[in-house]
Amino acid sequence: MANAIRFLAMDAVQKANSGHPGMPMGMADAVTVLFHRFLNIDPSRPDWPDRDRFVLSAGHGSMLLYAVHHLLGFADMPIEELQAFRQLGSRTAGHPEYGHALGIETTTGPLGQGISTAVGMALAEEMVAARFGRSLCDHYTYVVAGDGCLQEGISHEAIDLAGHLKLGKLIVLWDDNEISIDGATSLSTSMNQLERFRAAGWDAEAVDGHDCEAVAAAIAKARLSDMPSLIACRTRIGKGAATMEGSHKTHGAALGDKEIAATREKLGWHHPPFFVPGDIKSAWEGIAARGRAKRAEWEGRLAAASCREQYEQAITRSAGEDLAKALATFREEHQRKATKVATRQASQMVLEVINGATELTIGGSADLTGSNLTMTSQTQPIARGSFTGRYIHYGIREHGMAAAMNGLSLHGPFVPYGGTFLVFSDYARGALRLSALMQQRVIYVLTHDSIGLGEDGPTHQPVEHLAMLRATPNLNVFRPADIVETAECWEIALSDERTPSVLALSRQALPMLRTGSDSSNRSAKGAYVLRGADGRRDVTLIATGSEVEIAVAASNRLAEGGVHAAVVSMPCWEKFESQDEGYRRDTLGTAPRIAIEAAGRLGWDRWIGESGRFIGMSGFGASAPAGELYTHFGITAENVVSAALALIGSRPRGETHQQLEEA
Amino acid sequence: MANAIRFLAMDAVQKANSGHPGMPMGMADAVTVLFHRFLNIDPSRPDWPDRDRFVLSAGHGSMLLYAVHHLLGFADMPIEELQAFRQLGSRTAGHPEYGHALGIETTTGPLGQGISTAVGMALAEEMVAARFGRSLCDHYTYVVAGDGCLQEGISHEAIDLAGHLKLGKLIVLWDDNEISIDGATSLSTSMNQLERFRAAGWDAEAVDGHDCEAVAAAIAKARLSDMPSLIACRTRIGKGAATMEGSHKTHGAALGDKEIAATREKLGWHHPPFFVPGDIKSAWEGIAARGRAKRAEWEGRLAAASCREQYEQAITRSAGEDLAKALATFREEHQRKATKVATRQASQMVLEVINGATELTIGGSADLTGSNLTMTSQTQPIARGSFTGRYIHYGIREHGMAAAMNGLSLHGPFVPYGGTFLVFSDYARGALRLSALMQQRVIYVLTHDSIGLGEDGPTHQPVEHLAMLRATPNLNVFRPADIVETAECWEIALSDERTPSVLALSRQALPMLRTGSDSSNRSAKGAYVLRGADGRRDVTLIATGSEVEIAVAASNRLAEGGVHAAVVSMPCWEKFESQDEGYRRDTLGTAPRIAIEAAGRLGWDRWIGESGRFIGMSGFGASAPAGELYTHFGITAENVVSAALALIGSRPRGETHQQLEEA
Repeated sequence: MANAIRFLAMDAVQKANSGHPGMPMGMADAVTVLFHRFLNIDPSRPDWPDRDRFVLSAGHGSMLLYAVHHLLGFADMPIEELQAFRQLGSRTAGHPEYGHALGIETTTGPLGQGISTAVGMALAEEMVAARFGRSLCDHYTYVVAGDGCLQEGISHEAIDLAGHLKLGKLIVLWDDNEISIDGATSLSTSMNQLERFRAAGWDAEAVDGHDCEAVAAAIAKARLSDMPSLIACRTRIGKGAATMEGSHKTHGAALGDKEIAATREKLGWHHPPFFVPGDIKSAWEGIAARGRAKRAEWEGRLAAASCREQYEQAITRSAGEDLAKALATFREEHQRKATKVATRQASQMVLEVINGATELTIGGSADLTGSNLTMTSQTQPIARGSFTGRYIHYGIREHGMAAAMNGLSLHGPFVPYGGTFLVFSDYARGALRLSALMQQRVIYVLTHDSIGLGEDGPTHQPVEHLAMLRATPNLNVFRPADIVETAECWEIALSDERTPSVLALSRQALPMLRTGSDSSNRSAKGAYVLRGADGRRDVTLIATGSEVEIAVAASNRLAEGGVHAAVVSMPCWEKFESQDEGYRRDTLGTAPRIAIEAAGRLGWDRWIGESGRFIGMSGFGASAPAGELYTHFGITAENVVSAALALIGSRPRGETHQQLEEA
Repeated sequence: MANAIRFLAMDAVQKANSGHPGMPMGMADAVTVLFHRFLNIDPSRPDWPDRDRFVLSAGHGSMLLYAVHHLLGFADMPIEELQAFRQLGSRTAGHPEYGHALGIETTTGPLGQGISTAVGMALAEEMVAARFGRSLCDHYTYVVAGDGCLQEGISHEAIDLAGHLKLGKLIVLWDDNEISIDGATSLSTSMNQLERFRAAGWDAEAVDGHDCEAVAAAIAKARLSDMPSLIACRTRIGKGAATMEGSHKTHGAALGDKEIAATREKLGWHHPPFFVPGDIKSAWEGIAARGRAKRAEWEGRLAAASCREQYEQAITRSAGEDLAKALATFREEHQRKATKVATRQASQMVLEVINGATELTIGGSADLTGSNLTMTSQTQPIARGSFTGRYIHYGIREHGMAAAMNGLSLHGPFVPYGGTFLVFSDYARGALRLSALMQQRVIYVLTHDSIGLGEDGPTHQPVEHLAMLRATPNLNVFRPADIVETAECWEIALSDERTPSVLALSRQALPMLRTGSDSSNRSAKGAYVLRGADGRRDVTLIATGSEVEIAVAASNRLAEGGVHAAVVSMPCWEKFESQDEGYRRDTLGTAPRIAIEAAGRLGWDRWIGESGRFIGMSGFGASAPAGELYTHFGITAENVVSAALALIGSRPRGETHQQLEEA
């Protein structure tokens, strides 16, 4: 059975002349044992909620996963897909891509992500079980990780969290082949991984990864442990290859026709490429049959469960109409009261409403709860052995938090949100990108979103981060200007089921700016005219977040001088880009434009045009009280007024301008 | 002596009404022992190369550092600076900023960076000693780290590398106060840090951080170890505070006048704010005197050293004229030969020249040596006990690599460069930002820079990364188009001593495109007209890197149809931005513009204007051979031709256009 994996991997990589045969060959034995003896999945219902999760953290070994899926009989993984490995339009991408083929639990390839995402999945398993009982949720999360996964820093964050929470149903098989791309792992590491994992509260033991009984015994033992488990499978990369076994040359390139032919001879595999004998295929399909039976048993338990209705409602993951109504009421109330709060505080007030209307949201923060304001009255923290809560103290681990949120979302039915400072999205980038690539509804609450955070200084003041996030495909980047927009942006973030969102929120208090009685979600269009220029428009001021207040102040001063300035609030570029051209044109107007944002210019030229002006940051920030920084960096209503007058200077206005400039 | 730190920290935070008193108070005892008994620095020569390095990894405790500098008598740290803590223009920023005040060895604040940068410093110490002997280089690197530093993933990468290389002169004092911002560390971690560090090859022991003799004994022992050492200092946050000692409320806010007054009473500190009694000040200044004497001894040894000349030449860090000449010859040769290679390969060929001309460059890769092509004939790897080499196998640790490179550069005299895939700059972001903020000449060799990497698929294909890097202040982002530009960009990167650089390099081969006999470094202007439009310009095609070839092909096809297209190669936006307006205008021209780059659009509108076109990526990539991907995503000469014709369509050209469209 294991050799079937080996030859499918060798043949597919050879045909593509691209890919990684060494890992599938090295781990074929251990993975075969795992599937044959333990793993419960049903290829005919790959989304069965109580299936075991299998995460190939060493994603470059994707052919291992595709081979197994083919052998198990996944309907979308016929041999033709393996033959089209790494080709355009195939399901068999170079690395496993979530959504490309059934049963791929998560996208892997960037090392360390799989094991860290799996922590979120194992956590979700405990949380579902705590809510609905072990009869409806009782599965394992298995991970195959390589040396790279364990060297990457994110693995430290993940294993500490998993050990701390005692996620006993998380089992990691480490492909301990002592080889990485540059050669022997001894070139760069002397880590005693077993001791390292034990220090983090894991069970850890080493076995010969080619001794099937030893692997089976280790997995059986790990399943009984109440701690997460690491099984170091001592393997040889490219195991079975005629002459190249054990060499790093098997890692990332086709073995060549000659080596493969010799390997067929050596292993007695007298079959043409891509052919698997019937008896071996049957043995693999027996695994699928066991999974099918398990699934049927589970369905029986669900049908009989008293909580069936709640369970089914939960897994649809819909917050329902209640939330929309509650948020509409919230917005009306605060518009009426003209509530002036920091948008981070507004976010907490909105979350209080959201968390009251749905039980699916799971909050958390990377040790900045009191700053991110991500906790509400409904969110009791979880802890080891106690998983009914809805709040996760992720620790000082932004990357691990983002990956765990991906896992919570992928496992379902949860909608995770987690906080840190905007500038520390840097630390979470690797996993945040995967939220976008995998189209997961993960919400990043990123507060302290500009120099407005003040005294903490340049290391803590984001300058480039809005541009970085806006550059990322399939990511909503919201920067609301007041409490009303904050509620609107949260509503959109929750309703975009296939797009992660960032909420960039201010530390400092911001006035309620939304006037007018229109109760529609105006942020949904990404940008809108917040203050019209009565009659005519001489200039358009475009701003986001905390700088909208400055734009409004400038427009008021300009109005005193007879200059008609429209103010466009632009809480979400991505939403604005998706509007029709007419709306975009009407919103931006034909008058000269000035953008104001306490961040870098990159990207703004799209909205201001060649003759426009940008008022913002041109370098790193500084350490001082926020108000002084705005003055220091020239992000002020005065400068906006001056820029506006300079821009429209070509249209003579005489006295009026002079008066303004003297004011 | 320790209480002087405590009160200066309390008073400064109180005056600023902002900052973190808890950590300076908790670690005052241990840090006082460290400075009093061990640390050799000379405030009158803060850049003395053989000084001990002190890194405050827990950068939020910046007042500890400023207080110590004041007490030691640093000329730029009078009491007025402490009184201006966190105020605009002061040297006492919220977090220690390299370059803001003398003796700040590195910028800290983003957690985990200090300890990881210190690994690079300790490594540099070994490398200098290996080159010039222990009589000229024999110092320690001391780090004060907090719980956050040890929880962040980067710390895992750093301690594994340090343990592997046996950096025995690296000594970390961990402020083990069991408190983080959200409350007790037991909310989020159960890590046995001592066992964790031992697993990584460190000595580790715990002491009472308020028992001065115990701390001194532990440091003395650590200095004798041939392994790096962790000393867990069990402390109470806010130690000494009248009622708040041990509370997380002392972490990030002023204690209040009442608490401070009560603390003065409790500790018998009967002095006004910001006052330090003469005897205590004298005791601190004694430390400085010891350092001064040590420095004088060292200068004596240097004066007598046979390698004095080489040493002094090295620390000026100048590659000299030889390199410029060698690179000019290189460029001429390959222009003549029209060498067609991938720019990653061109980079390796250039590095062969550079590494031959200077011994200061230190290469490395995050386990992608054969892909990044960062090794040359001169770069033998270093290993534990053997530090004469010039190449570092950083392991699968992009973040740790970037931080270590910062440390190598800060320590001097080295110019580090390190490789990974462009997409995995994500993992290194936290430290890369500090390269820029600290103005360090660190060079990132980021290969596989687009969908051109082919089959590895979306997880490995950068789309947003060029924009992200371009958004970062003080960072050169180079994307050379051929071997000539690659040599030019390397030359600029080496000569920009206060700016880190990224070289975004292709996996795939690219033709030599530079024509003409001008031997000047044309990339130095950031963008230039590579192909003029004879006589008139109908359209300007702007491209970078691998897409310049496409622009040239399109211009040739357009020329066949009588359309005069200029091609602008734009290897570095930052350099182009810094040219005068006239040069920029002449280069971009007044004809309609089309930008071609196999990446996202963000930022390009600045160069193409409102009526311009962008041909590139609008979402994530796909897994397929590179050529097919370019066709699939429409990044082709054909599409450029069509776009050009559409753009200039308003100027009728009759048959010519029609012929082109039919072609």
